[in-house]
Amino acid sequence: MGINGYGTIGKRVADAVAAQPDMTVVGVAKTRPNYEATVAVESGYDLYAAIPERADQFGEAGLETAGTVEELIEASDIVVDATPSGVGADNKSLYEAADTPALFQGGEDDALVDVSFNARSNYEAAADADSVRVVSCNTTGLSRLIAPLREAFGIERVRATLVRRGGDPAQSDRGPINDILPDPKTLPSHHGPDVKTIFPDLSIDTLGLKVPATLMHMHSLNVTLESAPDVETVRDALADEDRLALLGEDLDITGTADVKEYAMDMGRPRGDFWENAIWDESITVKGRELYLFQAIHQESDVVPENIDAIRAVLEAEDKATSMARTNEALGLSDSPNPYPRP
Amino acid sequence: MGINGYGTIGKRVADAVAAQPDMTVVGVAKTRPNYEATVAVESGYDLYAAIPERADQFGEAGLETAGTVEELIEASDIVVDATPSGVGADNKSLYEAADTPALFQGGEDDALVDVSFNARSNYEAAADADSVRVVSCNTTGLSRLIAPLREAFGIERVRATLVRRGGDPAQSDRGPINDILPDPKTLPSHHGPDVKTIFPDLSIDTLGLKVPATLMHMHSLNVTLESAPDVETVRDALADEDRLALLGEDLDITGTADVKEYAMDMGRPRGDFWENAIWDESITVKGRELYLFQAIHQESDVVPENIDAIRAVLEAEDKATSMARTNEALGLSDSPNPYPRP
Repeated sequence: MGINGYGTIGKRVADAVAAQPDMTVVGVAKTRPNYEATVAVESGYDLYAAIPERADQFGEAGLETAGTVEELIEASDIVVDATPSGVGADNKSLYEAADTPALFQGGEDDALVDVSFNARSNYEAAADADSVRVVSCNTTGLSRLIAPLREAFGIERVRATLVRRGGDPAQSDRGPINDILPDPKTLPSHHGPDVKTIFPDLSIDTLGLKVPATLMHMHSLNVTLESAPDVETVRDALADEDRLALLGEDLDITGTADVKEYAMDMGRPRGDFWENAIWDESITVKGRELYLFQAIHQESDVVPENIDAIRAVLEAEDKATSMARTNEALGLSDSPNPYPRP
Repeated sequence: MGINGYGTIGKRVADAVAAQPDMTVVGVAKTRPNYEATVAVESGYDLYAAIPERADQFGEAGLETAGTVEELIEASDIVVDATPSGVGADNKSLYEAADTPALFQGGEDDALVDVSFNARSNYEAAADADSVRVVSCNTTGLSRLIAPLREAFGIERVRATLVRRGGDPAQSDRGPINDILPDPKTLPSHHGPDVKTIFPDLSIDTLGLKVPATLMHMHSLNVTLESAPDVETVRDALADEDRLALLGEDLDITGTADVKEYAMDMGRPRGDFWENAIWDESITVKGRELYLFQAIHQESDVVPENIDAIRAVLEAEDKATSMARTNEALGLSDSPNPYPRP
């Protein structure tokens, strides 16, 4: 596989591809040299120049390149476009010219692609597609929860308030500082309509806020179900899902910082938390009304979804096999000691 | 009136009492000398020692005291207890011993008092009461909104996510920094049951979060109405309420910091924003489902409510007269230039 764009998502997808027994990283394309490019080379990835005119910047920085992004695309069975929002749309013609299927990220528009993708919800829809959009971190988190609830209990309406981190930890040009902002001020936020690219007939209302935090998003969720299960039945249905992590009371996880600390203590790469982090104690059912809190790690929850999307497009495995293989290769269900063993 | 406790709420209530044409500040009681005590004396308030054994600390700090808190209570027609949560309960016997009616704040338990109070919702219930609790900032904000909606459209269910500031601006020992916490992790937060002290038969579910911000709380609100008004009808009903401020699109207020900046630009004391700050653009109606965002200034929205509670207990005025007089005396509807005029 080729990875075009080697920032927050691209570097994680590259490492995740390298961890799969049935995949190989052909190379990664980057616009400019920086610490991420240095680590890419040290990780053994061939580095391609995303902007050919700037290719010599890499040489000046002491980084060898293997060619241009066009050459990377030609050499790949499939390309994961992990460039910034909107740039993916500009790149589409490159993939089409090489007749290489491409995965885009959630910042791109649904209209750009053949299908918007969430592994749990619509894996099969991506088969043999030329272009697939792996939906955004928040839409992924909502879809993973909606799919099993819909199957088990039916859903009349979803209402979600998304309390969003202002920026990622390294995005030092982002705010807010000491503020709480409706974002957007009008309803719905884009998340509701985005979830409907996965579940077209779902009734969902989303409200977005932005706060001075960088670690994870937080969802305050209400789902009006079509039936009235007891809370244990709902908990069991969610506990069956590998990409929903129920944070038990014994873990004593107070907020997003504890979730990240937990991921680091488990030795996960970059402290990533790929699953929806659902507070078990928050799961509440009153008649047909379900409430819960879940935190979403914006930098990593789409990583396993990109891996599954690759297999889905190439029709390499069925859904259950792909998701299980991805989970195992990433160590999604393990809790190892964080230090390498001798 | 006497004010026992001269911190965030007490100092604001004292200034608000002093601004009323029909009220006089007998004095304020404080536990220890600090900048707030100094400003109290400079404001012309007689200072009483809340802890008689520590009374000489004031003298050592160069602040004259007029007596002990018991003497303040004896000299007052009514006392506003603005001491920290839980201390009010300890003080109740002092007020009873002096046969002086007392107002408590929202941090005290509903069981402590004859009646929990919100001016718009149940003014008359406080008539001749010995003890009244002015409900907390968040409960006040919710009650002010619920009362007119219930009257105009009926309410089937309220669902609210309260994104709470971690601490007040001067509470430098409070967190979080860079975190988003379910607070509490279980549902409901105490706010729903607290609102039911005002509207006993209301169906309301509240979820609480805590974020790294100090300026105001933010409510993400859903109300399932009993009828299906159009959005203009709802907006008109809310615009009729003096203590609901609809922030129009033209004001270009992006978040809580802009609301506070707006209050300071208007010359309001301490930059207080007494009204619910409702984003006009956020008001959305889909069938019987109403959604909106409102910000609540935790330090000040209960101040006009304390003033009205005084008149309600003493049966000095009817509800409409009291609320209008309070609003006018505080300058709640004015937008003056912030600098004093010559």
